[in-house]
Parts: sequence; C-alpha cells; structure tokens
Amino acid sequence: MIERRSGVALWRQIADRMRLAINNGDYDETAMMPSEATLAEKFGVNRHTVRSALSALADEGMVRAVQGVGTLIERRDRLTFPISRRTRFSQGLGDQARELQSKLIEQTMERATPVIATALEIAPGTDCIRLDTLGIADGKPISSATSYFPAERFAGIGAAYQRTGSITKALAELGVDDYVRRSTEISAIHAEGADVRLLKLSPGAILLVTTAINADTRGDPIQYSRSRFAADRVKFFVES
Amino acid sequence: MIERRSGVALWRQIADRMRLAINNGDYDETAMMPSEATLAEKFGVNRHTVRSALSALADEGMVRAVQGVGTLIERRDRLTFPISRRTRFSQGLGDQARELQSKLIEQTMERATPVIATALEIAPGTDCIRLDTLGIADGKPISSATSYFPAERFAGIGAAYQRTGSITKALAELGVDDYVRRSTEISAIHAEGADVRLLKLSPGAILLVTTAINADTRGDPIQYSRSRFAADRVKFFVES
Repeated sequence: MIERRSGVALWRQIADRMRLAINNGDYDETAMMPSEATLAEKFGVNRHTVRSALSALADEGMVRAVQGVGTLIERRDRLTFPISRRTRFSQGLGDQARELQSKLIEQTMERATPVIATALEIAPGTDCIRLDTLGIADGKPISSATSYFPAERFAGIGAAYQRTGSITKALAELGVDDYVRRSTEISAIHAEGADVRLLKLSPGAILLVTTAINADTRGDPIQYSRSRFAADRVKFFVES
Repeated sequence: MIERRSGVALWRQIADRMRLAINNGDYDETAMMPSEATLAEKFGVNRHTVRSALSALADEGMVRAVQGVGTLIERRDRLTFPISRRTRFSQGLGDQARELQSKLIEQTMERATPVIATALEIAPGTDCIRLDTLGIADGKPISSATSYFPAERFAGIGAAYQRTGSITKALAELGVDDYVRRSTEISAIHAEGADVRLLKLSPGAILLVTTAINADTRGDPIQYSRSRFAADRVKFFVES
C-alpha cells in the first residue's frame, strides 16, 4: 500500500514496489517497464513521482532509460542475505523469494584438517561428516555449500538433512534447538569445478564466499562451512 | 612469543607466526619456506609441530608442498578488513600492514541522485561533495572508493582530506568527533574502467564492493560511500 503520510517519500515507496514487481518477474515478458503514464495510473501517482522512482532504480542499475525506446530492465535485483548471529540460508530473505529449497549433493566422512579442527575445537584428524549442499531460490541455484560437523555428535545429520531439506531442522532433530553464527569471513573468487555446473554459471563468473562457524547455545562449535554464492544473484547485508 | 600453556595449540601458534613472517615478506627472496629442520630450530619446537603448522598454511592456500623441492609460498594472505560499527579504512588492520595511506584522486560537486539522497536523508538534487580516493597498504593499492558528503555541512572536506590523508581526520576537522557505520552491503563485480588502472588489476579481476552509510553520534548520516576492494588482496570479517 502506498502511504502518503508514512514519512517515506512517495517516489521511494513506488520504487520499492517497482523493484518487487521486477524481481517477481511481472515484466519478464517484455523486459521493459510499462510507460510512465501506465505506471502513474497503476500506482495512483503523478508522472513526476514515477520518473523519480525510475531514476532511483536506474541508479541501482536495475533499469536503463533508452531514448526513443523506453525503460529497459537490466537485471532483477540480487537477493540480499543478512549476515548476523541469526544467519541461516532458509530464513532472512523475507519476501525476496517465494520458495527456498536446499538439496543434498553429497555426503562423505572426512578427517578434520588443522583449519577445520581449529574451527570446530576438535583434534586434527577427528572424523567429520561433510555435507555438500545446494541452495535454490524460486527454482534458481543460488549457493553451493560445504559444511563439516563433528561425526560423533552429529551421526545421522545427512539423513536428517535429506529428510527435512534444512540444516536448521536437521540440527534440531539431533538436539540442537538453537545456534548462532559466531563469525563470518567474506571473500570473492572465480568459480571453479563443480560449482560452475551446480550453479549454472558462465566461465569467469564470480563467487562470493562466506566462511562461517556456528555454535550452539553453550558456545560449542557445531558447524564449519564454506558457502559459495553466485555473485550476480546475491549480495550481503551487514547491519552494524 | 610461543606460549606452551596458553590454551592455543602449539602448531597453531607456529602457523600464525609463519603467516605473519610470510605476510611481512621475510621469505620473499626465495618464495619458499626454509626447511622443516630450520623452522623447528627457529621456533624451538619439534619437526612434527612444524609439519602440522605447514599443513594448516597449506589448507589456507598460503603454501604448497612440492615433492623433492620443498614448501612453496603460493601467496601472501589477504588483508582482513573487519566490518563493524567502527569500520574505518585507516584502522582495524592491526599489524597486517605496516603503513596505510589514503590518496585523493578527484574531487567534484554533484547533485544527489535518489539513492544518495535516501542514504544521506537529504532532498534529491541537493549539492554533495564527491571524493574519489585510493587506499594503499604497504605501497600496494587495495581499494578505490567514492564517497558523498552533504556539501553544505562539509564544505572544505576535500582540502581537509588532502591535508590529513584520512576521512576520519578530515571529518574531525569539520566538527565530527566520532561516527559509526550504520550498515554495509557487500557484493562482487568484475573490475571496470578507472579501477583497473588505479588498483593495478589484470583483466577479469574481481572487486569486492561495499556500500556503506556512516552517521554521526546524533544519528545523522554524514557519508555515503561505495568502495571497491581488489578481491585477491582483501577479505572481510564480520563478528556476530
């Protein structure tokens, strides 16, 4: 709903609604925005307001005005993943995606390397369950993740994950009611190997990489993971 | 100092010291680690501990053992920038870099686009001072940033920045004793245009992009900035 006394400028509200419509694929057929007159009528505002809203979206790189043609849709917005203590793939996206899925690609048993051992506060060489998973939003692959869990405590997590399609639910089945993100490192690399195929990327595509440790409410590390997000589909948001 | 009762495994302490030495360029001449025997003697530990430390660094991709040759140094570590309320380019790197510089590339006056206006809570079209700056660590270009400041309140910030080489000090000269990062968006793109030259990148190189708003202690936005970091030299750290 457009609210004229909400304290949020009208053009900003319209821009937000247009962005949502673009992300929802409302204009996918033409890849163009309707005319200013049509948009003004649709949103019940004047054309000046529509122009300001379109200019905001042009600033963001979502649309581009082409003289004599109209306003082209350059891209759908990237999904914004919040990075916080409560970070989970399955939450935090709000109405940005209608359906989130998570799929098990592979399960293996591995001995903890020094880096994994340090993260999970276990001895190097300890058995860990490794899950390779794929995150999908509205049918599009978004992220590819590799997670390590201490095998002794989390035997059966692969099966629980396959049944529930969610790390959070699988952990809950194994007695972890709640957990928090302890820290996140963020870097960016060129996509390589299986990620290119799984995420349906083109050569040279960029991955945003998060390396994270989750801990249970007692502070014991339960999961070490390295997630690769298709950078053309995702950005991160850190609230301070 | 190596501490045997610190609660941090010995191999981890040695790995940290080796990483620091690598980052400091101690082994730049040969691009190889000294022999295990030499390292064991240097750090006063046995060769088993040295091997575990080198294995941790290999995990991180910093070194690589080559049969019959020795341990090659693959890369210096990326600088880790903390993302938090206290984020400033000139701080937070600790002993990762010996010298940080910040250089003014260009100063211009621009009218606020809708996106900038929203971030700075000013009317679209309001005059803003735009500063394009280059961040340099130990002589290497690290980041290229574009910052906007409301012109009325921050007239003279370009000169103050040029004099002090620091946004923080320039803001202090203009009466802003302290400020905080309100939020940060992080994305990744392929480097384009002037950034390639300024950051001395090769074609196809990746930029990590942060879009941030800083606010003074009263909560008034003072700076909107978009910083591009060379992804092969930098990663981010978010503490939850």
